[in-house]
Amino acid sequence: MKLVQQRSKKSGLSPGTVIHIGEQRAEAVKITLFNYAGTRCEERVVTNLDEIRLPADGTVMWVDVGGVHKVDVLEAFGKQFILHPLLLEDIANTDQRPKLDDYETYFFLVMKMLTTTNRGDILVEQVSSVLGYNYVLSFQENGTDAFHSVRERLRGGKGRLRQSGSDYLLYALVDGVVDQYFAVLEALGEKIELLQEGVMADPKPDTLKDIHALKRQLLFVRRAVWSLREATNSLSRSDCPFLHEPTKVFFRDVYDHVVQVVDTIETLREMVSASLDIYLSSVSYRLNAVMRVLTVITTIFMPLSFIASIYGMNFEYMPELGWEWGYPFILGIMGVLAAGMLIGFRQRKWL
Amino acid sequence: MKLVQQRSKKSGLSPGTVIHIGEQRAEAVKITLFNYAGTRCEERVVTNLDEIRLPADGTVMWVDVGGVHKVDVLEAFGKQFILHPLLLEDIANTDQRPKLDDYETYFFLVMKMLTTTNRGDILVEQVSSVLGYNYVLSFQENGTDAFHSVRERLRGGKGRLRQSGSDYLLYALVDGVVDQYFAVLEALGEKIELLQEGVMADPKPDTLKDIHALKRQLLFVRRAVWSLREATNSLSRSDCPFLHEPTKVFFRDVYDHVVQVVDTIETLREMVSASLDIYLSSVSYRLNAVMRVLTVITTIFMPLSFIASIYGMNFEYMPELGWEWGYPFILGIMGVLAAGMLIGFRQRKWL
Amino acid sequence: MKLVQQRSKKSGLSPGTVIHIGEQRAEAVKITLFNYAGTRCEERVVTNLDEIRLPADGTVMWVDVGGVHKVDVLEAFGKQFILHPLLLEDIANTDQRPKLDDYETYFFLVMKMLTTTNRGDILVEQVSSVLGYNYVLSFQENGTDAFHSVRERLRGGKGRLRQSGSDYLLYALVDGVVDQYFAVLEALGEKIELLQEGVMADPKPDTLKDIHALKRQLLFVRRAVWSLREATNSLSRSDCPFLHEPTKVFFRDVYDHVVQVVDTIETLREMVSASLDIYLSSVSYRLNAVMRVLTVITTIFMPLSFIASIYGMNFEYMPELGWEWGYPFILGIMGVLAAGMLIGFRQRKWL
Amino acid sequence: MKLVQQRSKKSGLSPGTVIHIGEQRAEAVKITLFNYAGTRCEERVVTNLDEIRLPADGTVMWVDVGGVHKVDVLEAFGKQFILHPLLLEDIANTDQRPKLDDYETYFFLVMKMLTTTNRGDILVEQVSSVLGYNYVLSFQENGTDAFHSVRERLRGGKGRLRQSGSDYLLYALVDGVVDQYFAVLEALGEKIELLQEGVMADPKPDTLKDIHALKRQLLFVRRAVWSLREATNSLSRSDCPFLHEPTKVFFRDVYDHVVQVVDTIETLREMVSASLDIYLSSVSYRLNAVMRVLTVITTIFMPLSFIASIYGMNFEYMPELGWEWGYPFILGIMGVLAAGMLIGFRQRKWL
Amino acid sequence: MKLVQQRSKKSGLSPGTVIHIGEQRAEAVKITLFNYAGTRCEERVVTNLDEIRLPADGTVMWVDVGGVHKVDVLEAFGKQFILHPLLLEDIANTDQRPKLDDYETYFFLVMKMLTTTNRGDILVEQVSSVLGYNYVLSFQENGTDAFHSVRERLRGGKGRLRQSGSDYLLYALVDGVVDQYFAVLEALGEKIELLQEGVMADPKPDTLKDIHALKRQLLFVRRAVWSLREATNSLSRSDCPFLHEPTKVFFRDVYDHVVQVVDTIETLREMVSASLDIYLSSVSYRLNAVMRVLTVITTIFMPLSFIASIYGMNFEYMPELGWEWGYPFILGIMGVLAAGMLIGFRQRKWL
Repeated sequence: MKLVQQRSKKSGLSPGTVIHIGEQRAEAVKITLFNYAGTRCEERVVTNLDEIRLPADGTVMWVDVGGVHKVDVLEAFGKQFILHPLLLEDIANTDQRPKLDDYETYFFLVMKMLTTTNRGDILVEQVSSVLGYNYVLSFQENGTDAFHSVRERLRGGKGRLRQSGSDYLLYALVDGVVDQYFAVLEALGEKIELLQEGVMADPKPDTLKDIHALKRQLLFVRRAVWSLREATNSLSRSDCPFLHEPTKVFFRDVYDHVVQVVDTIETLREMVSASLDIYLSSVSYRLNAVMRVLTVITTIFMPLSFIASIYGMNFEYMPELGWEWGYPFILGIMGVLAAGMLIGFRQRKWL
Repeated sequence: MKLVQQRSKKSGLSPGTVIHIGEQRAEAVKITLFNYAGTRCEERVVTNLDEIRLPADGTVMWVDVGGVHKVDVLEAFGKQFILHPLLLEDIANTDQRPKLDDYETYFFLVMKMLTTTNRGDILVEQVSSVLGYNYVLSFQENGTDAFHSVRERLRGGKGRLRQSGSDYLLYALVDGVVDQYFAVLEALGEKIELLQEGVMADPKPDTLKDIHALKRQLLFVRRAVWSLREATNSLSRSDCPFLHEPTKVFFRDVYDHVVQVVDTIETLREMVSASLDIYLSSVSYRLNAVMRVLTVITTIFMPLSFIASIYGMNFEYMPELGWEWGYPFILGIMGVLAAGMLIGFRQRKWL
Repeated sequence: MKLVQQRSKKSGLSPGTVIHIGEQRAEAVKITLFNYAGTRCEERVVTNLDEIRLPADGTVMWVDVGGVHKVDVLEAFGKQFILHPLLLEDIANTDQRPKLDDYETYFFLVMKMLTTTNRGDILVEQVSSVLGYNYVLSFQENGTDAFHSVRERLRGGKGRLRQSGSDYLLYALVDGVVDQYFAVLEALGEKIELLQEGVMADPKPDTLKDIHALKRQLLFVRRAVWSLREATNSLSRSDCPFLHEPTKVFFRDVYDHVVQVVDTIETLREMVSASLDIYLSSVSYRLNAVMRVLTVITTIFMPLSFIASIYGMNFEYMPELGWEWGYPFILGIMGVLAAGMLIGFRQRKWL
Repeated sequence: MKLVQQRSKKSGLSPGTVIHIGEQRAEAVKITLFNYAGTRCEERVVTNLDEIRLPADGTVMWVDVGGVHKVDVLEAFGKQFILHPLLLEDIANTDQRPKLDDYETYFFLVMKMLTTTNRGDILVEQVSSVLGYNYVLSFQENGTDAFHSVRERLRGGKGRLRQSGSDYLLYALVDGVVDQYFAVLEALGEKIELLQEGVMADPKPDTLKDIHALKRQLLFVRRAVWSLREATNSLSRSDCPFLHEPTKVFFRDVYDHVVQVVDTIETLREMVSASLDIYLSSVSYRLNAVMRVLTVITTIFMPLSFIASIYGMNFEYMPELGWEWGYPFILGIMGVLAAGMLIGFRQRKWL
Repeated sequence: MKLVQQRSKKSGLSPGTVIHIGEQRAEAVKITLFNYAGTRCEERVVTNLDEIRLPADGTVMWVDVGGVHKVDVLEAFGKQFILHPLLLEDIANTDQRPKLDDYETYFFLVMKMLTTTNRGDILVEQVSSVLGYNYVLSFQENGTDAFHSVRERLRGGKGRLRQSGSDYLLYALVDGVVDQYFAVLEALGEKIELLQEGVMADPKPDTLKDIHALKRQLLFVRRAVWSLREATNSLSRSDCPFLHEPTKVFFRDVYDHVVQVVDTIETLREMVSASLDIYLSSVSYRLNAVMRVLTVITTIFMPLSFIASIYGMNFEYMPELGWEWGYPFILGIMGVLAAGMLIGFRQRKWL
């Protein structure tokens, strides 16, 4: 999770130039094609891009592209589906914020998929999709199989998926991405609960690092989700002809989910801020406690030592030194003094 | 009160799949049916769902369902009243935010009911309702009898309830839920007053825990109430035919109440924040007081002890040691020194 | 000034039930009636509610009710003027926020009157008014004579009051309430100026209590005023037939005043927050000063005492002890050491 | 700069009563009249108000009034130009916020002029203007000659001023006031730069006072400027017939300047806040440094003194005391101990 | 980067007076002229302003002016292209905020170009452009060749540039400026990452200075970018005839970039704020650690020294002094005491 992606290599290039911005990758791009309508469902791995042709028979086509680091593949799609150069540029540049662009004959939607690694890190992956009237193109930054469950549902033929148009397919993809957010938030929520317990019990510098790391993760998650709210809201209100009324109800539902995700992120952020407050308060309270101990010790032993040092002076004429009961008498005075101060401290509740 | 509900078990399922998300429960679902109009009022406990039929005789029907953990019950309702699958999914998933969805032939309203336990905890329970032109369905997460007073008013026949349509019944339900909020806020308000007195008098780590717990409770209450504001506002402005003008006045009133609840929550939140400020200031002031004591003690006794230790040195030629009045003279000097410093501290207002 | 009013006794009652919420009171309700137009002005104390009748002769009627704790009085007004039950409920419940409700044949306005007691506390009193086309009803929570000056102007017949309609009378009432706000803000402003001087000169725990009390008072004042802004704005823009154009100019003026009050409250809030910052900074600066004294004392006397204690050791073979100039030599070394450290501290600006 | 102006003396008076609120003043009011059109430009000091008559010959008239503390002068203007009583009240009450009121036949604009005194204080002066279709009235709170340059331009006849209508004259006045804001901000900006250097180099209580004074000044400047933004925006968008299109371009420009002033104020406020953060951090860092010195001194000398005090005990059987090399041996041990601790502290970077 | 530019020298001048505000400069102004359409592209360095004439042959003209400190050059342009005096004033005054002004026959756009110097400072340069239907004028504050890549693309004839109108040229200029922002943000982002690592590892006063410098730089960058958002949005939605539909898609893209820049700035700001929190927390934690060491040392050695000083008293009758095992016995007691306290501290986790 870098704060700012290295984007400057694009600087000075003609706009619309397709350049991959993101982690460097070398593996091949995997392209899967689905073609379905009602009971039919054809699935194919595409190796030659020329095979991809818009269906003319009322079926819906879904082309899922795993990897955006091959510029030539993207340009081939651009030619085949007559996509705007800026759109291709945005797909290749994985440093976009979520957004919905309306290109009249198709919609372009950018989302950020979030996954939690085993070590508790959060991975952000850009997922771009193009929605045409009878096709959906989806571009995943890495080959992570984000849409496994959608694929399964297509194959199984259960639910509405095969009965509906390309708009419902896009909904299914968006819903899959948003569902992942809840899993990520659950993981973060548990971490924060642990943190808060820890910060109460024993504040230490590591706690501070944890607080900071969580703050940063939440900041990243928020950036990834925030503007998807607007995008899904637009989808649920669009009056575009290939977004059907019944599907808009589903987009409204996914919009509700995104709103809830954003709400939860804000709550978690407040919780993390509260943890910092508790940390600081605990540390300053502990300082108080330490200083009280120091003060009590000093206040008790300084006068006692002073008395002892008086009778350690070597004056020739110090009558007390010659008294038979001088030593126990002085010890007794010290004892009384110490006891008096202990009682005083106890009354001030310092002990 | 968990920060994030465990919702991930839905991940990857087809949208509209009805799955109970929330606390696991086993008891049976209690269904009560009311059928009323003017002087008539029939009340029945329903065991067989097929008994429930939309009234055809101008009466209003209210079906109150206690428990949403039985998926089959919800699906039966879905079939009987032709409810959208997403709506059923939302009823079963008790991690919704308050909202109003307009499904054209019916409204779907989600609220959060709040109750305070004897131990001062706040319980959140989801209450979903469906408002049709002559029926209201209400689904309570737990069997808590949230609508006891509405039932009593229906049985007694007093007030407008029996004379009005389904919209007024929904209002009565919403009003009952919102009235509860005031009770919860009263309890929180009293706790905060106590806290503020305590934090002034004696700040200690437990106070910090209390501040934090209150902050968290207020955060939860706010999340439960916040978006109900928008929902009730929509109800008071809707131009739907089965929301009658006179009832909208009542919804405007309930909207006013929700706004006031939100206002009060914000005030309470500011008060809790102020408590943290006071806590921190008090702790740091006390540190100052402690350090002053330490400094005064050290400043007085260090020079005295130093003088005593000088005359404890064993040099053979120290003329003072042989003087007859050396000892009382030195004691006198110490006394003058101590008195002088005490006066100095008093002038600086350190004592 | 309680944080949350006890409202829960209404819980479960039928909406529109008129119940007094607020301080318990027993005295009688004083009702004064004015009837005026141009040169005429009749004034009467009403004891029998049946006497009150809407004027049919083009005069304006003002009924001022002192006290809202008698439910039967309110209900009598409800019948006489055909007022909505929710409106009566709101009058009796003194825990409303300022608001303007448009009931088509009349407006309902809730305001909060603020007064400062001699002891510097701020009293909040609810003032509700109903504006009909030829009458104004005003309900004051306590018998405080809030509208004394309006009454005097009516009696004297100076100004526009007697020449104008009921809308201008309402304006006069609102203007009277808003004028009071400035007096309250002046008092608060002076307190804050004093506080800021005090916090600079001598921060002590009492200052913290004062800061907190002011913060709380400002919070209450803000709640009392905030939503009146919207209400007066609505009045100045309403297209209701019995709000005349010339009077709207006056309502715009009163709206300006409310905006200014809100502005001033925000400024005062920032000032109080700044006081807390100064308090904290001063306390921590003083801690620094105290610690410097402690450190200087310790740093000077610890080495000196150490040297003295070396020559207090009882070794048989310590050649220095036998030197004739040993004692003055050691005293000299101590003096040089002390002087050196004093110079060092002065150079570091610690003294 | 008082937090809240004393406005309560108006309390209870009939609205529209013209009462001077502001600093008490006694000197006479100076009234200057300009009458110009194209090449003509007549200038006169007015002593008798009856001389002022609306020009009937296509010329533009500007009456500049220096001082608003003479109520009779204002009322004479009110009669002559048929001004609304509320408008006169607002001119006399110098505690207004900037605003634009549209009275249909004329506009009323309130601005706050800011000037810096030699001692660095900021003076706020209220400037009200009335714009009619062929006249402008301007009322300055004090006799400060705020519009000197406008007068000069009128006399010189350069620029558009004499060729344009009353709207352009108003623009010239507003532009003159807004130009002053930049000078004030420059002065404040320089003070803040100095402050930030000072706070880094040597944080002391005076710095805190400076921070606080600047915060307060910025708060006042913001209040004086903030709502002028809205007022100038309204002027640049008004569709009033005597505001000509070409002049609106100029008002848009002055609006731009006001926006920039507000922007700069916000930046300066953030800078002052940052200064407080730096102050606090520096103070707490210095505390750390002081405490380290204290701890190092204590940690080194306490064990050494302890060792010395052991050999100062008077036990009869302490073999070490009799050893010939006992004294140098113990001195050596002390030296080694001290050196070891110094190395340890250096490794922990405490020295 | 000064907080406030010195603008006061304009005070009192007639509006529309063109005066250079910014760094004083003396070098000549370099003017480059491009004239292109499709395959043609003529490039010329202009020395005589009269040479510049609007193209009448369907070509597009771009005049790039390097330097705005020569008032006569600007005025010559004003005459040639009939530009509004306020526009010329804005070009010469380099203290503008980004904005778009619509002068009907041309647009006026002000941007701020940002560049990072080798030493890590950020330079702000004002770039103003005028877009007419077949020409673009660009004015750069300094001679920095900001538009090098655009020039290259024009010369090369690649991309859409030569095929499109003046609107696309403006887009290319804006895009070039915005691309630079990403480079600046990258540099800032790396600095902040370094800062955060440093603040965790070793907080020192220099860190505080770095935090403050970054805060300030971000504030400046935000001011430079913030209102460009609105300006580019207006361009992408304008219905002006010489802004063609296809070009608006590109302006929408550049608007997206600006939004992303603003987003990133906010994230970076939060990161810097977080650094300050970490700094403060670390410092206060370290204080705790230091104080613990002090307290442990004091608590262990004060009682031990006290015991030793007791047996250093010179009473004649102190039986312990005569015991043969008195000395080792007392040493043993001291050892046990020290060990006990060490164990106690370890249990409290102070060591």
